[in-house]
Amino acid sequence: MPASSTPRNPTAAAPADRQRRQRVQAAQTGMDVLKGLAELDGRASLTALSQHLQLPLAKVHRYLMSMVEAELVAQDPASQQYYLGAQAIRIGLAAMRQADPIRLAEPALLRLRETLAVTCFIAVMGNQGPTIVRFEEPSLPVTVNVRAGSVLSLLWSATGRVFLSHLDDAAMARMAEAELRRCTPQQRSQLAPSRPLQALRAQLGQAPCLAVRDTNLPGISAVAAPIRDHGGKVVAVLTALGASGGFDAGLDGPIAQAVQREAQAVSRALGWV
Amino acid sequence: MPASSTPRNPTAAAPADRQRRQRVQAAQTGMDVLKGLAELDGRASLTALSQHLQLPLAKVHRYLMSMVEAELVAQDPASQQYYLGAQAIRIGLAAMRQADPIRLAEPALLRLRETLAVTCFIAVMGNQGPTIVRFEEPSLPVTVNVRAGSVLSLLWSATGRVFLSHLDDAAMARMAEAELRRCTPQQRSQLAPSRPLQALRAQLGQAPCLAVRDTNLPGISAVAAPIRDHGGKVVAVLTALGASGGFDAGLDGPIAQAVQREAQAVSRALGWV
Repeated sequence: MPASSTPRNPTAAAPADRQRRQRVQAAQTGMDVLKGLAELDGRASLTALSQHLQLPLAKVHRYLMSMVEAELVAQDPASQQYYLGAQAIRIGLAAMRQADPIRLAEPALLRLRETLAVTCFIAVMGNQGPTIVRFEEPSLPVTVNVRAGSVLSLLWSATGRVFLSHLDDAAMARMAEAELRRCTPQQRSQLAPSRPLQALRAQLGQAPCLAVRDTNLPGISAVAAPIRDHGGKVVAVLTALGASGGFDAGLDGPIAQAVQREAQAVSRALGWV
Repeated sequence: MPASSTPRNPTAAAPADRQRRQRVQAAQTGMDVLKGLAELDGRASLTALSQHLQLPLAKVHRYLMSMVEAELVAQDPASQQYYLGAQAIRIGLAAMRQADPIRLAEPALLRLRETLAVTCFIAVMGNQGPTIVRFEEPSLPVTVNVRAGSVLSLLWSATGRVFLSHLDDAAMARMAEAELRRCTPQQRSQLAPSRPLQALRAQLGQAPCLAVRDTNLPGISAVAAPIRDHGGKVVAVLTALGASGGFDAGLDGPIAQAVQREAQAVSRALGWV
């Protein structure tokens, strides 16, 4: 925190500068109080909050009073506890409206392309199935017939399987059934004879990362990880792919680990804990 | 804002006091920046935000920087705009978990009882129908056979009709159908001959306040208003009742106006705009 670092000779700093620094520091304390109350699930006594923040009672009280005035915090007349108020709800709702998994995942795509030289993309669940909405490829790309706008298989692509194993809605179930009916005999032979979709879902579990090798596109491997919103719902999938020969699709390998790490960072930015 | 009032002779104030006051004022500016960003739907350029807040660019920028550090705000690398970040979502979610319509409506019950000398209560939708959860009556109560725990009629009580006209879920529809089958011939004659529930709902509309006279309990009139959560869903109903002779159930009368005003204030405290 540069704003809180003390200059070697405080009297040498211009008074206006010092005042500005102190003010920003005070605003930070205000935000710490707000975050502290959220960490205590949105409600606490003055004593509990001051212990949690490791700040003096009187100081926390002063900040709370100004937050009560701003309607960010309210005090329960019965218990005397402080709780996050109507303005905190409004700020949170505005933040949720702005939380866009596609925009937040774009820098991750660029990092994956640069550091690992892989083709990578973000897909969301469209009305025809998992659909690529952003696509990045390295300067020496592998030849794949997918791009932004492509709808992927729920049953055979890594991306689709992440949605299949994490989502539970009727529209997706219908798409998976329709895809099952279109399977080739060779594809069908890879699935369980009875209740194949339930068996596939059970087999996939709810892993933080999934890989496929040659199941969707011959000669292509891919790893994919779920991006979750504040409520834990999978709202997008981050995927990297490459030619099966030179692409490490191992779940402990550097590509799967990087995809998983980036997907988790995006989920955190969306409010998922 | 007492913290921002300037003493007549600033040099006379103890320096420690003055500093404390300035710090609380700085925290308030921080909260104004946060609320300003929420008012601009959670995302704005520095210029737009500083115009909205009527504060200098450099000042708003300093506060934004400290909020970026605290993860309350993030900056979009593509557009350079600032938007409410992951911590703002977390604070909002904690605030929503704390938003309790029953607790927030209790002071309203006491005010209605004191100022208008009416029996009043808060009801929520229980699994058997609209259910009274808090009940207050004046020192000279009217005799009614309802109290905390009582389940009210969806079709004939003012409270029930507010739920009936504002909610749209299958469980409630089944309860209303069951109640319709139990109607007396005299009650049935007050409803439309065909599709009576749809007709009643259409007739009630989605009024901010509803009144009944003698329909539910003979000799008793009531007025009721919906309490909405941050998403606009009716989560509780605030009702006042009295003996039809001395109780003004007119929607423009002082009781209906007070009930409506109190219900709206609780809704605002729950984040409803």
